[in-house]
Amino acid sequence: MNIIVKKYGGTSVATVERIEKIAKKVVELKKKNKIIVVVSAPAGMTNDLLEKAKKISKTPSKRELDMILSVGEQVSISLLSMAIQNLGEKSISFTGWQASILTNENYNKAKIKKINIKRIKKELEKDNVVILAGFQGVTKKNEITTLGRGGSDITATAVAAALGLKEVDICTDVNGVYTSDPRIVNNAKKIQKISYEEMLEMADSGAKVLHGRCVELAAKNNLKIHLRSSFTEEIGTIVGGVKNMEKPIIKGITLSKNESKISIKGIPYSINVLNTIFKEIANEGINIDLIVENKVKDEIDISFTLSKNDFEKALCVSNKIKEKLKAKNVEFNESVSKISVIGYGIKSNPGIAAKVFEVLSNEKIPIDMVSCSEIKISCIVSKEHSEIGLKKLHEKLIEKNKEVEKYENL
Amino acid sequence: MNIIVKKYGGTSVATVERIEKIAKKVVELKKKNKIIVVVSAPAGMTNDLLEKAKKISKTPSKRELDMILSVGEQVSISLLSMAIQNLGEKSISFTGWQASILTNENYNKAKIKKINIKRIKKELEKDNVVILAGFQGVTKKNEITTLGRGGSDITATAVAAALGLKEVDICTDVNGVYTSDPRIVNNAKKIQKISYEEMLEMADSGAKVLHGRCVELAAKNNLKIHLRSSFTEEIGTIVGGVKNMEKPIIKGITLSKNESKISIKGIPYSINVLNTIFKEIANEGINIDLIVENKVKDEIDISFTLSKNDFEKALCVSNKIKEKLKAKNVEFNESVSKISVIGYGIKSNPGIAAKVFEVLSNEKIPIDMVSCSEIKISCIVSKEHSEIGLKKLHEKLIEKNKEVEKYENL
Repeated sequence: MNIIVKKYGGTSVATVERIEKIAKKVVELKKKNKIIVVVSAPAGMTNDLLEKAKKISKTPSKRELDMILSVGEQVSISLLSMAIQNLGEKSISFTGWQASILTNENYNKAKIKKINIKRIKKELEKDNVVILAGFQGVTKKNEITTLGRGGSDITATAVAAALGLKEVDICTDVNGVYTSDPRIVNNAKKIQKISYEEMLEMADSGAKVLHGRCVELAAKNNLKIHLRSSFTEEIGTIVGGVKNMEKPIIKGITLSKNESKISIKGIPYSINVLNTIFKEIANEGINIDLIVENKVKDEIDISFTLSKNDFEKALCVSNKIKEKLKAKNVEFNESVSKISVIGYGIKSNPGIAAKVFEVLSNEKIPIDMVSCSEIKISCIVSKEHSEIGLKKLHEKLIEKNKEVEKYENL
Repeated sequence: MNIIVKKYGGTSVATVERIEKIAKKVVELKKKNKIIVVVSAPAGMTNDLLEKAKKISKTPSKRELDMILSVGEQVSISLLSMAIQNLGEKSISFTGWQASILTNENYNKAKIKKINIKRIKKELEKDNVVILAGFQGVTKKNEITTLGRGGSDITATAVAAALGLKEVDICTDVNGVYTSDPRIVNNAKKIQKISYEEMLEMADSGAKVLHGRCVELAAKNNLKIHLRSSFTEEIGTIVGGVKNMEKPIIKGITLSKNESKISIKGIPYSINVLNTIFKEIANEGINIDLIVENKVKDEIDISFTLSKNDFEKALCVSNKIKEKLKAKNVEFNESVSKISVIGYGIKSNPGIAAKVFEVLSNEKIPIDMVSCSEIKISCIVSKEHSEIGLKKLHEKLIEKNKEVEKYENL
């Protein structure tokens, strides 16, 4: 019999009514399949607990944080199991430790090392719907860990991979991945198929619908992710299993407003400048996104962007670096936006970059920084220009480009 | 170094401020002792979760119920641990399964079979405050269980017993056991010392401050319970370690309003009547409190009282019994009250029973049923008479009785 792994996010289990809706769907699917359901904590619950913790301590121990962060899913799994049983179907719920989801000891963002699927398989054989707490695991020393952002998606993907399945269903409150944010771009279209690499760039560039770690895990295990709505049977977006194409295809355009920019200016030239700067920053655990270096005579200017969450820490380090390297000054903009155009062949088709710059320039939007990867161009623009830039790029590069549709209909 | 086990109830960890207060107390005590803290769920949390569960299913599976009922303590232990660490002290929190609190598989009211205290001892040796989730355990098959009412007191008592200690501190929002309910009887006095047996009768008769199971466990292990306030250092009530006395001593007078009464009348006499009735009732898992039987000619009338919570179930069974035994009718009063007078030597001193009846009769309070044990007289009275009866009995039997004070000053 076919095994289906379905993950439901926090909004899908936020109320009793929604839990009952999910239960009905699961019972319906159960008629023809064996079902494993992975659930997140009810929306809001984990944040409420986190807030309480932060009231008690500004820097709570990571171990104790995972202790409290893992209770939300335990609530969801038990309520969903009750709802399924109430419809006359057999089910059993498991926390991360009960399901033997073994992780390393990296509290708050632990990595799954192994899943012992014996117990899960046994319960499937007994005709139970198996309900698993997402986002959490256990170390070999019996300590509770959580997996960090996107954790439940990762749990579902890892379980599907451990069972040797070909696909995992990630069910959420949107019905797929869009060519751009539909709340901003009216004509944004649902993407039918997208490669792992493109999805990774989308996720990294502001599309919050799937976390990069989950996409990577799926890619490694050659597992397709079907990103779809929690409440309908509509086909969503399939991630993975797409052949790369020679022709450049713009798959999506994303916007992230959660960015900050810092520049360290007038650093006396030395071979070690970059090395020194980014070692100091890495030591603080700050992830840098874009980097632009500019050398004028014997001085270097360095600008970089990073997540707004890390801004204060980064500014602090930057000032230390300024002193150390005898730089002239530190400039910053706490709130900038990043627009990213994503698709295969972007780098090998310089025309696309040119088109992006042309569209923005026609709108009189200054581009502050630019970065290109194999399949992505990102532009840092000011916050006030970000939405109009996104709309215009979507209009010119996707809505007026027949290639997209051709690709979509493959 | 001295090991102290302290249990804090749900009201003591209901807010961030209270958790911080408890943390301060623990850190203070830690200077001279090794500390184990057992905590309940934040007041209200478990009930909220239970309500959600009941919305989804009127008869949720007991296993899934324990899954959700056990999350509250996980929140408390982690927040308390953070608060202690925030004051610069080392601490570590454990759920029931992490602390190896092994129980049988009787979900919702599991019994502790064994506590593997290796891990707890190791952490005490590492100079950690050990914080344990009360109320919960784990079966040998890795299933989560809860211990039922008074569960956290039971956890604390069991842990103290497993460590071979002589005393356990049960900290709560009152500062001891009183001769009667201070909210009703103004002159109720705190009891300094009380025997296990007296405390058992008090608990069974409406004093909610300690659960009988916990007292039994302490008695079996010859462990004193020090029932005291969460927030002061005041000495509370010591349960256990009291010698019995020849002279009758009235230790306390309790009131329980949570009682129902059912009578099955006009049952044709047969030797099996009582047997049949109470087997049927036991099969439904209903605990009966008082029983009165009355035989007139060839007919029997049976009356019994039970907890109001079981009233509907019990009435339903009683009607079945009526049909089966061809009784004439079933009468009931959903809401009656039970006043109990507790102390050693009550049965062997018939004067006390007479005094109880005299006080109630002087107040023109009809006594509906009476039951006597070795150390307790219970009277069922109507709800409207209950508080005045309690006050008068306290006045005549305790306030005007010098014996009490003599005992108190031992």
